[in-house]
Amino acid sequence: MAEIKDKFSDFVNHLQKKITSEIELLDQKSKFKNDKWIRKEGGGGLTMVIENGNVFEKGGVNVSKVHGILPKSMSELLGVDQSDFFACGISMVLHPKNPMAPTFHSNLRFFELYQKNKIIDCWFGGGLDLTPYYLFEKDAHLFHSSCKKICDKFNSNYYIKFKEKCDKYFWNTHRNEARGVGGLFFDYCRGKSKDEMNNWLMFIQELGNSFMDPYLDIVRKRTKMRYSKQNVDWQQIRRGRYVEFNLLHDKGTLFGLKTNGRIESILMSMPPRVKWNYDSKPEKGSDEENLIKILKSPKNWI
Amino acid sequence: MAEIKDKFSDFVNHLQKKITSEIELLDQKSKFKNDKWIRKEGGGGLTMVIENGNVFEKGGVNVSKVHGILPKSMSELLGVDQSDFFACGISMVLHPKNPMAPTFHSNLRFFELYQKNKIIDCWFGGGLDLTPYYLFEKDAHLFHSSCKKICDKFNSNYYIKFKEKCDKYFWNTHRNEARGVGGLFFDYCRGKSKDEMNNWLMFIQELGNSFMDPYLDIVRKRTKMRYSKQNVDWQQIRRGRYVEFNLLHDKGTLFGLKTNGRIESILMSMPPRVKWNYDSKPEKGSDEENLIKILKSPKNWI
Repeated sequence: MAEIKDKFSDFVNHLQKKITSEIELLDQKSKFKNDKWIRKEGGGGLTMVIENGNVFEKGGVNVSKVHGILPKSMSELLGVDQSDFFACGISMVLHPKNPMAPTFHSNLRFFELYQKNKIIDCWFGGGLDLTPYYLFEKDAHLFHSSCKKICDKFNSNYYIKFKEKCDKYFWNTHRNEARGVGGLFFDYCRGKSKDEMNNWLMFIQELGNSFMDPYLDIVRKRTKMRYSKQNVDWQQIRRGRYVEFNLLHDKGTLFGLKTNGRIESILMSMPPRVKWNYDSKPEKGSDEENLIKILKSPKNWI
Repeated sequence: MAEIKDKFSDFVNHLQKKITSEIELLDQKSKFKNDKWIRKEGGGGLTMVIENGNVFEKGGVNVSKVHGILPKSMSELLGVDQSDFFACGISMVLHPKNPMAPTFHSNLRFFELYQKNKIIDCWFGGGLDLTPYYLFEKDAHLFHSSCKKICDKFNSNYYIKFKEKCDKYFWNTHRNEARGVGGLFFDYCRGKSKDEMNNWLMFIQELGNSFMDPYLDIVRKRTKMRYSKQNVDWQQIRRGRYVEFNLLHDKGTLFGLKTNGRIESILMSMPPRVKWNYDSKPEKGSDEENLIKILKSPKNWI
């Protein structure tokens, strides 16, 4: 589906520019650093990273477009014979400075497989999720409502389906708790016809064009709040769980690291400052304990 | 080999007491916190952790003695039918505050397998390694010399064999660099006779009784050195590599997390404060760059 591929490819470029401008505008201090990179085996990408901002302590917005022979580990995973592939995606992680503001992650991707120069399969995947350090139910509600609104434009089953997949995926099994309050997660979104694939493309585009508004609204609000050293400590301890998820469970990270991806682009998701205290437990009845309680089982936020 | 098992079991208890006393004596500020824990499926352990000391920012010395039905993932790894097991070990990680002082890790363990209540196999394993943030060749030399001295008492081939295994094991594949300057690593140390097993026991005991002296000598010396905020930043960035190794590659950590081990005891190895800056590169000709160069290929330290 050459058209879909080209349209999505243009879309991610445009989206990267749009999102990074919005972030810079809000931050008012730091600017994104651009790193263009080339993949030896085919393709490359543009990694854009912001650090030490007024609002964002660290954040990255990556676009990658890679192609070549499908790595063996991936062909085994997908259950296909030796193939060529094209993969294009935009992924972003934003770690605000203020512990009252949540971390945001999103990824939108398109995958195409070829044998003897003919397309044998193609699909979209992606998702977005919110990781608060202090829970404001209003924020989780706003975030999920906007996810539902976008989903409902396309299919009234999408939201509940993709929300559940998200809760399942962003689960820190070894801690028996969610990474955050979830969002959406979907993969292998295929279409039998060109129209169906176009529908998926429109869904992905709608998501990409819409998800920053509610998130930046939340950040704008929370970033004005006062916070203590103790709040920062808690944020850094919780960021440790984020690291644990990404390095132990996140398939994207592990796949990237095992297939010789660009390390710095993959690990731009790592939080800037992190703490591991031994057996740290929040005080009974505290806001910190409240967060943990909520993360113990997925909640319906709408 | 009931005798070996009991002797090793007593030994690790004694060693834990001895080592934690030595550390407290050196630290002069913080004391170890003791956490006795029970494993639902059989056995338990004693986790001892020190935090926010004068000398040690964080450190743990764990003893565990667990038994029961061998988890499936483990029987597959070992290539045995359904068995019962007993595993006993002492493991420790010490993260000094001063960036001039290296992090130290050691693990000594004994494993026994049973079928129909009869021992079908038993072996020792373990190792120790040093992770400097600033390289003092003298320290690496002292550490390796003392490793060699202990090894040579038992077999003139041990040092070079176990040193090479260590270099291979503590390799951060995704970064293409060593975790630190290495040390010793050995596993599946079996004996055909009781005498041979006793020899391994004596080797392990000799190691356990000796390895703290050179390490604490190094710490005593380096902890007196002055350091800057920039040195601490570098230490925290390098600690990020330590986290990456433990969560991505360390078999012990991953096995523990996947078999429902005690999370806090397994992750006591995590450094206390860690940083991930995007694509951080040391200045040309700096001490920081020198460390990286050395870590790119294993070196002969003697």
